[in-house]
Amino acid sequence: MTLSDALAIINKEIQSIEYPKNPAGLYDPIAYLLALKGKKIRPALTLLACNLYCDEAKEAIPVALAWEIFHNFTLMHDDVMDKADLRRGQAAVHKKWNENTAILSGDAMLILSYKYLAKSSSRNLKTLLDLFSDTAAKICEGQQFDMEYEKRTVISEKEYIEMIRLKTAVMLGACLKSGAMVGGADEGDQQNLYDFGIRLGIGFQIKDDWLDLYGKPELFGKKPGGDILCNKKTFLLVTALETANKEDKEALLYWLGNDLQSDEKINAVRRLYDKLSVKERTQTVLQNYYHQSIDALQGVSTARKKILEDIAGELIEREF
Amino acid sequence: MTLSDALAIINKEIQSIEYPKNPAGLYDPIAYLLALKGKKIRPALTLLACNLYCDEAKEAIPVALAWEIFHNFTLMHDDVMDKADLRRGQAAVHKKWNENTAILSGDAMLILSYKYLAKSSSRNLKTLLDLFSDTAAKICEGQQFDMEYEKRTVISEKEYIEMIRLKTAVMLGACLKSGAMVGGADEGDQQNLYDFGIRLGIGFQIKDDWLDLYGKPELFGKKPGGDILCNKKTFLLVTALETANKEDKEALLYWLGNDLQSDEKINAVRRLYDKLSVKERTQTVLQNYYHQSIDALQGVSTARKKILEDIAGELIEREF
Repeated sequence: MTLSDALAIINKEIQSIEYPKNPAGLYDPIAYLLALKGKKIRPALTLLACNLYCDEAKEAIPVALAWEIFHNFTLMHDDVMDKADLRRGQAAVHKKWNENTAILSGDAMLILSYKYLAKSSSRNLKTLLDLFSDTAAKICEGQQFDMEYEKRTVISEKEYIEMIRLKTAVMLGACLKSGAMVGGADEGDQQNLYDFGIRLGIGFQIKDDWLDLYGKPELFGKKPGGDILCNKKTFLLVTALETANKEDKEALLYWLGNDLQSDEKINAVRRLYDKLSVKERTQTVLQNYYHQSIDALQGVSTARKKILEDIAGELIEREF
Repeated sequence: MTLSDALAIINKEIQSIEYPKNPAGLYDPIAYLLALKGKKIRPALTLLACNLYCDEAKEAIPVALAWEIFHNFTLMHDDVMDKADLRRGQAAVHKKWNENTAILSGDAMLILSYKYLAKSSSRNLKTLLDLFSDTAAKICEGQQFDMEYEKRTVISEKEYIEMIRLKTAVMLGACLKSGAMVGGADEGDQQNLYDFGIRLGIGFQIKDDWLDLYGKPELFGKKPGGDILCNKKTFLLVTALETANKEDKEALLYWLGNDLQSDEKINAVRRLYDKLSVKERTQTVLQNYYHQSIDALQGVSTARKKILEDIAGELIEREF
């Protein structure tokens, strides 16, 4: 099974979800959000991990859908909490409808994800359910830290990494682990795939931060520096503050303490980053997480794992 | 096991829930809401239904807690959606903290309810999980209808009953059914207990509406007519509109179409209700649901069911 095969299965399955007709006000927003174009890398990882251990990945399909629906539930609620008006280039649910709709349809979506999980073969159901709920709770913890950190001026690199581990990375690990579990992997392989996912997930998020400033606009599709303009806590900023001397730190905090929406601000922060070698430091950390993820993958016993190594390489090298 | 025994177990278990220390901002609101005094009739029904079939109800404790945590999750989110500032006489979570906290801690609470459900013996886990998720989805549907109906001038008695069936009654049915399932009841008994709970739940909500206007203030603890002042859709109003002639309907809609906060409004609506025999009609419907619930209970095979008959009588006859 290739990544394209996995994505094709996921897209087909999502399109064929049948929602109750009534109340449309509850289910339409769910169908809307799930129909927006997204990477769908998470459910694909579940299918691919299952396929490492059995020729079909059919049994893993409901689990993969559970993850994708859960992921979209977090987006629906996060967009309300973060007051984000756009999602994948389209109106977020709380803007297209309203906040109450985004809250309640999000709740229904979280419940729907558990419905899909329960459709999986019952042999591993208890273990799957525990993994799913533990991961889901960690993702809430990550969002909570994220919201708390937005109100602080300085957070440490360690705090930042722990936050993105919870908010982003554990889900990639759990997607892989659950797929492997359904496919019949032993516990050692499950753990190695989990570790691979966590490290790849942290690298994935750091790359996201990197692309926002250093990506090629013609490939990334956005003007560089958006994160700087909205004073977002990114790995770039966190690592800059951690290495800056008193004077540079004050300069950074000056720029971060205002709401200027100008190239002047982006350029000033970029110059400080250049002075502090933020680009190079970030590349080094990113490459470290990539190599650590590959290390974890080495411990996986199945020969078919090459596909995961390729995906890791593509995610870390991606330009958009 | 008496109702007091069941409530004592539930209260003790809720007090001994251990939450992760971090992030406190995520878990404190959950502990706060669960510590507020509530009826806790739902988890008690789960224990009592289990106890109909086995001498201990220990196995049903995590399931009972799952329902109570789930119920409180709905309260946390409903209070945001309904802009209700008070819950059980104390500040609602979104007032004591903020809306984002109520959204995210509510999400964590929904996930926590599934964690408790998964702690139950795995023999029935798949069936329990399906019952739980189906019930949870219905409760979201009920809340959606409730919010949609708030925006309409007139809803039919049939629509109102279906809304409270989804929003309130299915949970009572499912609490009983899940307890019976864990206790080892056959499917016939499970279904009869479910039907008993649904009918009792509908009666319970109608009684709620009745008490708001016709309850004894010294027992009910609130000034009569609060629902009239906030133009709430209640069984009283719905049945009045359904039986009113053109002139009385116009008079009712006049009073409902304004935001007067006076005894004049309460008295005017009460006079219209008197003219339309709303009090008596409501009592009749309430008694019907009570008798229908007892009919369903007749079909339950175990001799210990008397306790449920007593609880039904108390809930329907209650003065607060």
